[in-house]
Amino acid sequence: MIIVLHRNSSDEQIQYIMERILELGFKPHLSRGEVRTIIGVIGDEEKLQVEPLAAIEGVEQVLPILKPFKLASREMHPADSVVTIGKVKIGGGHLGMIAGPCAIEGYEILDGIAAAIKAAGANILRGGAFKPRTSPYSFQGLGEEGLKILKDVGAKHDMPVVTEVMDPRQVALVERYTDMFQIGARNMQNFDLLREVGQTSKPVLLKRGMSATVKDLLMSAEYVLSEGNSQVVLCERGVRSFEDSTRNMLDMSAVPNVQTQSHLPIIVDPSHATGKPALIPAMARASVAAGADGVHIEVHSCPEKAKSDGPQALLPKQYAAVMLDLKKLAEVMGKTF
Amino acid sequence: MIIVLHRNSSDEQIQYIMERILELGFKPHLSRGEVRTIIGVIGDEEKLQVEPLAAIEGVEQVLPILKPFKLASREMHPADSVVTIGKVKIGGGHLGMIAGPCAIEGYEILDGIAAAIKAAGANILRGGAFKPRTSPYSFQGLGEEGLKILKDVGAKHDMPVVTEVMDPRQVALVERYTDMFQIGARNMQNFDLLREVGQTSKPVLLKRGMSATVKDLLMSAEYVLSEGNSQVVLCERGVRSFEDSTRNMLDMSAVPNVQTQSHLPIIVDPSHATGKPALIPAMARASVAAGADGVHIEVHSCPEKAKSDGPQALLPKQYAAVMLDLKKLAEVMGKTF
Amino acid sequence: MIIVLHRNSSDEQIQYIMERILELGFKPHLSRGEVRTIIGVIGDEEKLQVEPLAAIEGVEQVLPILKPFKLASREMHPADSVVTIGKVKIGGGHLGMIAGPCAIEGYEILDGIAAAIKAAGANILRGGAFKPRTSPYSFQGLGEEGLKILKDVGAKHDMPVVTEVMDPRQVALVERYTDMFQIGARNMQNFDLLREVGQTSKPVLLKRGMSATVKDLLMSAEYVLSEGNSQVVLCERGVRSFEDSTRNMLDMSAVPNVQTQSHLPIIVDPSHATGKPALIPAMARASVAAGADGVHIEVHSCPEKAKSDGPQALLPKQYAAVMLDLKKLAEVMGKTF
Amino acid sequence: MIIVLHRNSSDEQIQYIMERILELGFKPHLSRGEVRTIIGVIGDEEKLQVEPLAAIEGVEQVLPILKPFKLASREMHPADSVVTIGKVKIGGGHLGMIAGPCAIEGYEILDGIAAAIKAAGANILRGGAFKPRTSPYSFQGLGEEGLKILKDVGAKHDMPVVTEVMDPRQVALVERYTDMFQIGARNMQNFDLLREVGQTSKPVLLKRGMSATVKDLLMSAEYVLSEGNSQVVLCERGVRSFEDSTRNMLDMSAVPNVQTQSHLPIIVDPSHATGKPALIPAMARASVAAGADGVHIEVHSCPEKAKSDGPQALLPKQYAAVMLDLKKLAEVMGKTF
Repeated sequence: MIIVLHRNSSDEQIQYIMERILELGFKPHLSRGEVRTIIGVIGDEEKLQVEPLAAIEGVEQVLPILKPFKLASREMHPADSVVTIGKVKIGGGHLGMIAGPCAIEGYEILDGIAAAIKAAGANILRGGAFKPRTSPYSFQGLGEEGLKILKDVGAKHDMPVVTEVMDPRQVALVERYTDMFQIGARNMQNFDLLREVGQTSKPVLLKRGMSATVKDLLMSAEYVLSEGNSQVVLCERGVRSFEDSTRNMLDMSAVPNVQTQSHLPIIVDPSHATGKPALIPAMARASVAAGADGVHIEVHSCPEKAKSDGPQALLPKQYAAVMLDLKKLAEVMGKTF
Repeated sequence: MIIVLHRNSSDEQIQYIMERILELGFKPHLSRGEVRTIIGVIGDEEKLQVEPLAAIEGVEQVLPILKPFKLASREMHPADSVVTIGKVKIGGGHLGMIAGPCAIEGYEILDGIAAAIKAAGANILRGGAFKPRTSPYSFQGLGEEGLKILKDVGAKHDMPVVTEVMDPRQVALVERYTDMFQIGARNMQNFDLLREVGQTSKPVLLKRGMSATVKDLLMSAEYVLSEGNSQVVLCERGVRSFEDSTRNMLDMSAVPNVQTQSHLPIIVDPSHATGKPALIPAMARASVAAGADGVHIEVHSCPEKAKSDGPQALLPKQYAAVMLDLKKLAEVMGKTF
Repeated sequence: MIIVLHRNSSDEQIQYIMERILELGFKPHLSRGEVRTIIGVIGDEEKLQVEPLAAIEGVEQVLPILKPFKLASREMHPADSVVTIGKVKIGGGHLGMIAGPCAIEGYEILDGIAAAIKAAGANILRGGAFKPRTSPYSFQGLGEEGLKILKDVGAKHDMPVVTEVMDPRQVALVERYTDMFQIGARNMQNFDLLREVGQTSKPVLLKRGMSATVKDLLMSAEYVLSEGNSQVVLCERGVRSFEDSTRNMLDMSAVPNVQTQSHLPIIVDPSHATGKPALIPAMARASVAAGADGVHIEVHSCPEKAKSDGPQALLPKQYAAVMLDLKKLAEVMGKTF
Repeated sequence: MIIVLHRNSSDEQIQYIMERILELGFKPHLSRGEVRTIIGVIGDEEKLQVEPLAAIEGVEQVLPILKPFKLASREMHPADSVVTIGKVKIGGGHLGMIAGPCAIEGYEILDGIAAAIKAAGANILRGGAFKPRTSPYSFQGLGEEGLKILKDVGAKHDMPVVTEVMDPRQVALVERYTDMFQIGARNMQNFDLLREVGQTSKPVLLKRGMSATVKDLLMSAEYVLSEGNSQVVLCERGVRSFEDSTRNMLDMSAVPNVQTQSHLPIIVDPSHATGKPALIPAMARASVAAGADGVHIEVHSCPEKAKSDGPQALLPKQYAAVMLDLKKLAEVMGKTF
């Protein structure tokens, strides 16, 4: 850690800071430059990062050197992690192809969609039973009834299932029905919820928050990992931006950015990222070529009657067309699904 | 609601859309322009907004006319709401001057800070017992012990208290000790938590999410209001931006922006918004002059030893100096605290 | 165009607005809804868009229906445009592979880089002679001397060249040496410069501004097109965002987003978008898979001694490795370079 | 400057970096920590900042310690600068109250507006003769005819005038008519234009770019200052953000942020920042209370017929009402206009 002092910091201030650092159990190295004086601090930076050194008089800024995450970092775990959901693997060359409707609306509809996406090559079925809706007046999901339908349809089509959990009180209930928890973008920093799923033995699909940096995302993964659950898959789903012609801005560079810093698999959700069916196929292709470990796409057999996010869903035939392209691209990338 | 059709939409498509709208119980008005055809839809727009009309073939875009919030809107409630926390009022000319440390660290420290801010003119004491920390390795708050200290210190100094609740399971516990719930920025769209505090009888301080629009903020307030709790105070605390020299970007225009659309009081938190003590006094003054219904400032007697966010806290003497300015400005604005 | 009236607009106000629209030569259609009254306006929307109708008392908002660009729109020109730079084509299945150093530093260095990128498959050579530097104290480019070197090296290696022009006074000078003008991100809305290159017969590479929407980018292209120069290639190069671990945020969805709205080719520059060599290969691959019409990459034989943006340049051998992947991906996409 | 090395950097790499720094004329200080090795570099950091040290193998990141601007910095010039436009002063307790229409449309209209704003307390008249319009089909300004009108009306009402210059070729022309140049947001990094006005003797109003950081703004001021023109006034006018209910997001904290780092005066333009007349008065008040050195407001006597940006202009009577408030606030702040 580097402590940069104010141009006019006094000798007393410098002395005080040096003593404070020693008192905290670290070794300070003083370097007086022509214009600025800096203090390098050596020791366990993680312990140091929680100390409010920037608040000491005479300090201009504190520059951390180490990354604040540990279990999620590639330095601690150089090989790619492979996460297993039922019989499906994500990471290390295995692509997770997650598809399904935004919300579970009934057995027949979901059954039809599941059959279609399975035929197109999807290997994990998604569907929401608890929906985080901006408006309290919108459809909020079928709850446990939806979970049952999801489990049954998944079993019928031999696909593991993933569904969102929004409330720590629902974790035990959702766990009974799902093969993987989804933590939605709005809950990426719902730390109590992260801890709760971290204490289960089911894998977690952690979506990036709408204005979370890559570092924030990895810190949230760290919450799950630090509770003992090492089965975390990250998901880039677009962030908020000034661009008003897409629902969010897909930060495609998050894929290699995460992969250089962390061993955790990362997939991309072009449905929420763009909000526009016309842009989803191109972004799905780009995701695979960027090296993502999977693609998450919303599919609905009748978008105009969907109870949630219909306008961004692909039709089953559109999904099938995309998947043909993704197969060719996966081959070029040396990956399979 | 206006439905804009694609340039090349066919007569069959138009016919189909017209029928679909009638079927939903609304009256469509067709206007064929030189380049575009549009359909105006008249009826209860709230019901219509949940229908995925944009997913119908031939539709280019759907333009809503009405705002999606109702109980929070000024149209439904033209007069300013006044929220009462203990003996203190916020709104309608009454300024809520909330101050205190980021985290509750012990009785003596909080007692000292409370005495100082009370003397400076603060009327509500804040302090965190459950802390949402980016890192699982940072100090997470004293929990119930902290709540007890907060209640005791508030009582001693005759100030109502506000503290954050992060988990729906803690709402009942926190309610026993606090006069006002705080919903933090990271939980602004934690809808289960919003519903839970909406079912209590204590006022709620709802902080704007890091990338929430003003509309999003009002929709989250709508969640609390729709459960029956009408005591909501909004708080602008800065949003994420590209500017890297401040912690967040204070969107000061959110103050009049909210006030033109909603009857709910709105205060400003320049501490989290800037993250820099040097900028807080100017932003506190600007908040009062902008017409905010209060100011929320973090104060700590020894920022360099604070267990959370020390570097952004004001010293008690700095806070007292700011409050002198705020008194003069409140007078110009015709308000009191 | 749709004019939405305030909830409380009076009959006189409505009457006045109706007359004003008739006076401007358009036909208004009044629809009174239960909560809101709206006026649909039919006629040449382009003429109407310049009228400040939102300023009339009683008007709440004005919603345009048509896009404000015309020559750049796919509606006016359904087929893909193909832009020709020397013997190289961009668009319609032809990929423009632009590479070279950020700044031209001398004949030998550029010659070496040109040989290497040509061998790797690049078809257009880039290099800056006039550099837009954030600091007035940074290297500003070799000026005309640099242009000569660029032209000579391009000729030697049989590659057309592209270089940035920053000042309308330099357009004639630069035109003598270059095969294609580059308009940098900082000048995307330097309208006098756009008009000036619009009056030449050389193609223009127009980079997206750091906070320009896709619509803004197409409006800037419209400036060039409206002066008579139809040879415009757009370039996505990342936009400003809150993410602080990359130089900019690459908005990959801009590729299909532009392609659905415009006939102009669009390429991607992952060098400026990410600023990090470790992320460039993945983003170059994603660009081709997304359907981009080319990729722009900075290459330098000795980044650590480069006079501008060295830390984001690829080494020639790294570039060659990327190009092998891009060839395979271009094949899958049915494109060539 | 601090150079942080990769975890696995080899001894040869470290040796090479040390030699490279010595070769550049600087003194390196090596500190080997438990996890990371860092090199502190002492010497003239400005010279060092142009070296691409981050591109050397083994280097993870380079952390600059000093700010990259010099003439604009408060460290070099501790007292507030006061800029003089005709007889009007901005800075050091003097508020510049700039008002007028977006575009100059004719003598009579401007004359009427000037009389009204002068009566309300404005001390500088603004009006655009060259307009940067997003669309090539919008009104582009009256050019020299407009400049003449502006000069005449300013003289009649004894107010100095400010007008935008967009093209380096127009600087000499504009200089003949204006008392102050305005550099618009879109041209904040038009470096040739900055240099050109830097060589004149007229003061410059430099508006912040739409996605410029405070540091970027100060670097652009540095361009003007480095050419010898020290009369620069900065202007915060809102930045691009995800918030879609205002035209831009007013970064009010830029006022104290600039003032702590620079001696240059800074004013605020709430008209462009919000784009909404209903929000302008509150933001004008907040600007004065934040410590801004002036306020820039667009005023038009008939916004609904204005040729540019009518919907964001205040009526003269609205402006007069705001100015009454600003007078009281200026008094509290110990300032005058």
